[in-house]
Amino acid sequence: MAVSEIPTAPPSGFRDFPPDLCAPRAAAMETIARVYRSFGFSQIATSAVEDLAVLLGKGGGENEKLIFKLLKRGEKLDAALAAHEELSDMGLRFDLTLPLARFYSKNKGVLPHPFKAFQIGPVWRAERAQKGRYREFVQCDIDVVGSESPIAEIEVIAAIRSAFEACGLPRPPAAFVNDRSLLLGALKRAGVAPEKLSSACIALDKLDKLPEEKVYGELKALGAASAWNLFKEGTLADFAELDKNAAERLKDVIASVNDLAGAEAAVFCPSLVRGFDYYTSTVFEFRRAGAPGSLGGGGRYDRLTEKFGGQPVPACGGSIGFERLMLLLEEVPAPAAGPTFCMTVFSSELRQAALRYAAALRRKGHDVDVYPGSGKLGAQFKYADAKKARFALVIGPEELSAGKVKVKELASGQERILSLDEDPFLKSQAAF
Amino acid sequence: MAVSEIPTAPPSGFRDFPPDLCAPRAAAMETIARVYRSFGFSQIATSAVEDLAVLLGKGGGENEKLIFKLLKRGEKLDAALAAHEELSDMGLRFDLTLPLARFYSKNKGVLPHPFKAFQIGPVWRAERAQKGRYREFVQCDIDVVGSESPIAEIEVIAAIRSAFEACGLPRPPAAFVNDRSLLLGALKRAGVAPEKLSSACIALDKLDKLPEEKVYGELKALGAASAWNLFKEGTLADFAELDKNAAERLKDVIASVNDLAGAEAAVFCPSLVRGFDYYTSTVFEFRRAGAPGSLGGGGRYDRLTEKFGGQPVPACGGSIGFERLMLLLEEVPAPAAGPTFCMTVFSSELRQAALRYAAALRRKGHDVDVYPGSGKLGAQFKYADAKKARFALVIGPEELSAGKVKVKELASGQERILSLDEDPFLKSQAAF
Repeated sequence: MAVSEIPTAPPSGFRDFPPDLCAPRAAAMETIARVYRSFGFSQIATSAVEDLAVLLGKGGGENEKLIFKLLKRGEKLDAALAAHEELSDMGLRFDLTLPLARFYSKNKGVLPHPFKAFQIGPVWRAERAQKGRYREFVQCDIDVVGSESPIAEIEVIAAIRSAFEACGLPRPPAAFVNDRSLLLGALKRAGVAPEKLSSACIALDKLDKLPEEKVYGELKALGAASAWNLFKEGTLADFAELDKNAAERLKDVIASVNDLAGAEAAVFCPSLVRGFDYYTSTVFEFRRAGAPGSLGGGGRYDRLTEKFGGQPVPACGGSIGFERLMLLLEEVPAPAAGPTFCMTVFSSELRQAALRYAAALRRKGHDVDVYPGSGKLGAQFKYADAKKARFALVIGPEELSAGKVKVKELASGQERILSLDEDPFLKSQAAF
Repeated sequence: MAVSEIPTAPPSGFRDFPPDLCAPRAAAMETIARVYRSFGFSQIATSAVEDLAVLLGKGGGENEKLIFKLLKRGEKLDAALAAHEELSDMGLRFDLTLPLARFYSKNKGVLPHPFKAFQIGPVWRAERAQKGRYREFVQCDIDVVGSESPIAEIEVIAAIRSAFEACGLPRPPAAFVNDRSLLLGALKRAGVAPEKLSSACIALDKLDKLPEEKVYGELKALGAASAWNLFKEGTLADFAELDKNAAERLKDVIASVNDLAGAEAAVFCPSLVRGFDYYTSTVFEFRRAGAPGSLGGGGRYDRLTEKFGGQPVPACGGSIGFERLMLLLEEVPAPAAGPTFCMTVFSSELRQAALRYAAALRRKGHDVDVYPGSGKLGAQFKYADAKKARFALVIGPEELSAGKVKVKELASGQERILSLDEDPFLKSQAAF
C-alpha cells in the first residue's frame, strides 16, 4: 500500500476532538458526574467489549444490525471459516443499560441495595452515518436498581435536569412523562388487536418526525383511530379509568418533580412511547419547548435482569443525549479554556530560569504553558495567542539579573515588570 | 440459547469497575488531566476505531497480532467471503500515539505550533489475558509535536512525575533515560552486524525480566559481549565519544529535570531500550527503586507522521501506565468516597419533605443520597452504611411539625436535632 493511501481522517461516522471541542466535552462530563454524585449515585464502568450472547440475548432481533462485531482470530477464525460458523463471538456495547443489567446480575450480592449507579462512556452503533448521528457517541446513564419506589423516577429525572442546569444549558428541557400501561390500555380499548399493539406503538412514536395526518393514517389502519384525541389532548384524569394505579403513580411523580424543580419541569405526554422494548411502565423524555428531538430520556425496566437468569428486579434509569447536549452548549458563550500563563524561553541559556519560574507558578496552582523551544519572541507571543493564554511571561538577561519577570497581558498588550517572588496573577489583576 | 447460558462476567481480559474501584480511577484520571493541563497541554480525543490501513501501515508486522478487528457487515461481508478477501477493514486502536500522529497530520494547519497535547482513554490489545495484563486498559499520553527542543523531553518527564505526585503515589518513580543512538553506537562499536542490531536491542530489553547471565549470553552470541560492562555500569561520559551531541543533549535533559524535580528524578540508564521501533533518539521509562516493571515511559519519535505522507515532524511524548499506577495506589489509604449525607424516607407521606430537604442541601454543595424507598429505618441506616455516608438524616412526623431534622453520625451513633434551615454539616462538625 502506498504511503499516500493511509487516511488521516477517522473512519466514516467516527470523530476526533481537537482541543476546542474536547475541553468543553471533558468539562461537561465532569459536571454531569459531579451532579450525579451529589444525588448519591456511584460511578461504575463496564467493559467496552461484550460477549455476543450478552448483546444479542435470546435470538438476536433488532439489535443485531446495530452491533460492531469483533472478528475471531487465529485458529478460532480458521475453524469458524472452515465450518461456516459464526466469525465473531464478541462485539462493542451499543448502550449502557444492558451492561448495567449484566453487571448487576453478577455483583448484586456485594452491592448496596437498592443500587444507585451512573456510567459515562462511549457506545458504538453500526448505523448509517449522517449529520448529527455518529457511530461512536457518549452516553451518561443514571439508574436505580432494586427499587419499586417512585423516588427512583423522581430522583433520576431531577438529577438529569440538575445536570442540564449545571452544564449551563439555557431553558433546561422539560421531562415528558408517560406510562406504558396507559398507552397500551388506550390502544386496546380502541380495539387494536393484541398482535398489532407493537405496530401501533411504533406508529405513535413517529409523531415527532412525521406529519400528524400520516401518523393518524397509520393508527387508523391499525384500529386505533378512536384513541387519537386521547393521545393528542388527553389529561391524566382521562386515562385514570384505564389503570387507576398507574395514573395515580404518574401523577405523584410529576407533582413531586415539579415541586422540587419548578412548575412544568415534568409534563404528562400520553403519546410518548420511547423505542426500547425493555421499558415496562414509566417512560420519559427530555425535550425543549420549540426544539425538535430529545435531549435524553429513560424509564422503568423491571425485567431486564431476567435475561441473566435471575429474578426480575425493579429498575428505573435515564440517560443524557450527550452529543445533542454538546451541540446546544456550543451556542452558549464559554470562557476561553487556555492556560493563564505562557512562559516564553528567551534563549537556551535562560531556559532553566524560565522552567524554574513556571514550576513555581504551577506550585501556586496556576496553569503555565512553557514554549517548547526558544528563538524569536514574536513567534512565541503568537503561540501564546493561539493557546489562548491570558499573559505571556518573559525572563530575559536583564530581568534575570534583577530578579524580575516581564508580564504581558496579551489582549491589551500592556506590560509590567514584577519581582520573581510576587504572584503575577494576583499582581496583574490589580495592575491591568 | 438457554437463558442461563448468557454470561454475567465480561469477556476474558476485560473488566468491570464497581464503585469502590471506579471512584479512585475517575479521581486519578481527573488529577492527571489537571496536572497535564497545568503544564499547558491541551486535551484531545480520537476515535476508538481506526481504519486498518492506519493501524497496520506498510505491510502490517508485529502489531497485526495485537489488533481487535471489526468484522465487515452486510453486503461488504458477503462479497469479502465470496472473494476470500479481508473480512475486516477497521480495528480498535492499540495505543494513543499512532492516532495522535494521524490526527496531527490531518489538523496541523489549524493547530498551535508546536502542538502540546494530552489524551486519556482506553486502548485494546488482543494479547493473551493474564494477571495484571488486560485486553482493555487506559493510557494517559502527553506529547509535544513539532519541537526539536530538549524542553519537550524535560516538560513531558516533569509533567508525568508531577502527575504521579498529585495522585498521591508515595516514592514517585524516577525516569530512567537513554538515547537510542548511544545504544546503537555501543552495539556497533562492539562489532554487532547491522542486520543483528535489532535482535541485540530485543535481547538487552529483557534485562528487566530475565537473569543477567541469560541476557549476557544472548548478547555475546550476537557479538556484543565487549559492550556488556558499558551497558551495566557506563556513565554518560563513557558514551560521549560515540555521539557527542546525543550525550550532551541527554546530560542537559537529566540535569534540567533534576534541577526542577529533585535529585535522582532522572537517571541515565545505558541499557534502556523501550520496545517500540518508532523511537528515534531519547527514550525514558519510569521505574520505582526496588520494584520491578515500568510505571510509564516514552521517548522522541521524529518520523511517525511520515507514515501519513507528510514531512517528518519532530515529536516527543510519554505515557502513564495507568493500570499499574492504580495497583500501587490501592496500597495508599484513601478517604471514603461516599456521599456526606444519606436522607432517609420515614414514610410515603413524608417523602416530599425528605426530597425537598435533600434538594436544599445539594444547593449548598453537599452530596446527598436519598434512600429510594421507605420503610424500616434500620434497613435505611444499613443502606447509609453501605454507601459510606457520614451522616444519616431523618425527618419524621415530630421533626416535620417542629421544622427540624435528626442528624445521626453513623460512625459514632450520636444524634442531634437541628433546624431545617441550619447547615447540618457545619453544625455537625462542631457538634460531634
